[in-house]
Amino acid sequence: MKVKGKFITVEGPEGAGKTTILNRIVQELKNRGMDVVQTREPGGIAIAEQIRSVILNKENTAMDARTEALLYAAARRQHLIEKVIPAVERGAVVLCDRFIDSSLAYQGHARGLGMDEVASINDFATNGMMPELTLLFDVSPEVGLARIYRHNGREVNRLDLEGLSFHEKVREGYLLLAKREKGRIEVVNAEKNEETVFQEALEKIEKVLR
Amino acid sequence: MKVKGKFITVEGPEGAGKTTILNRIVQELKNRGMDVVQTREPGGIAIAEQIRSVILNKENTAMDARTEALLYAAARRQHLIEKVIPAVERGAVVLCDRFIDSSLAYQGHARGLGMDEVASINDFATNGMMPELTLLFDVSPEVGLARIYRHNGREVNRLDLEGLSFHEKVREGYLLLAKREKGRIEVVNAEKNEETVFQEALEKIEKVLR
Repeated sequence: MKVKGKFITVEGPEGAGKTTILNRIVQELKNRGMDVVQTREPGGIAIAEQIRSVILNKENTAMDARTEALLYAAARRQHLIEKVIPAVERGAVVLCDRFIDSSLAYQGHARGLGMDEVASINDFATNGMMPELTLLFDVSPEVGLARIYRHNGREVNRLDLEGLSFHEKVREGYLLLAKREKGRIEVVNAEKNEETVFQEALEKIEKVLR
Repeated sequence: MKVKGKFITVEGPEGAGKTTILNRIVQELKNRGMDVVQTREPGGIAIAEQIRSVILNKENTAMDARTEALLYAAARRQHLIEKVIPAVERGAVVLCDRFIDSSLAYQGHARGLGMDEVASINDFATNGMMPELTLLFDVSPEVGLARIYRHNGREVNRLDLEGLSFHEKVREGYLLLAKREKGRIEVVNAEKNEETVFQEALEKIEKVLR
């Protein structure tokens, strides 16, 4: 693959404010005349959307953690092939809400499948395509969940209901990853006010765009 | 896991006659008063059926080979957890139409993803649970496909249409696996007449049931 553009991912627990900040960053970069693609993992890709609807179906309470991890990897693969790679190849800046680190933090660490085991199926899915930069929006579970419920029109889904201790483990997993991959993952304190978080995130992105 | 029962899988290309022979074997073992569970991978498991419908959807022509392999592994995991393992634990003989070797032959070998790579995601899915015996019904693609189209009411699906050279590769993959895993995989010449194939398959199963 000839890489002309940039592939940047945004990670963090529920309620970290990823979407709000991402929307502002995308607008800012577009205002500068850049070719920007904003996406998240099913990304309007029919096959990946079908997979996501299996994952999030509230009736699927019997879903095993390994099944879930394999489904996330499958949706990731299809979204990468159909949307991310073509955009990066034409020279766009692709900003993706959640990617491989979500699976490592949620399934690998929080559900206890093991980060290395989950990494192995995700390596199969990505076939070596990794982001140049990952912004990790770090927030305590209490602050994150409070934001979700305050937020209008956001339906609470199966994953939200797992309880606080699960969310604590997710955060721990993310911070472990940030330590392991200092070159790629940049931590942003997402408990600060929106303007501060936005400026900090934008500066980190500008560094890889230069 | 305390293993009390037996886990036996049946493999082979399309039109090898697996289902016909399997039905007769199940009837024979039930007549002997055995607790027999006949299944195939979605196996009526809601989550696995949902995954299978994504795989077989004729509109999903953009499906990447790695996505497909991950989906098969996900459906496999859920079927194993909800149906196979509980039955084997209570002491049943579980006869499963297709399992891990299908992914290795179809995705790993015929689609060229590599058997070892596909084995790695399937090892994650099965977490070490392998069949004690696998019957490989070996048949040439010409004989196999001719049987499919002759067969009443069998709708030709996306996988059937891949062409003969694909089916040649599938057969080659299966035979490679049979060489590698002589202790587990037993090859049955499925071009012989039904009665001969049935007797040969039954004898091989009786050996592991003793």
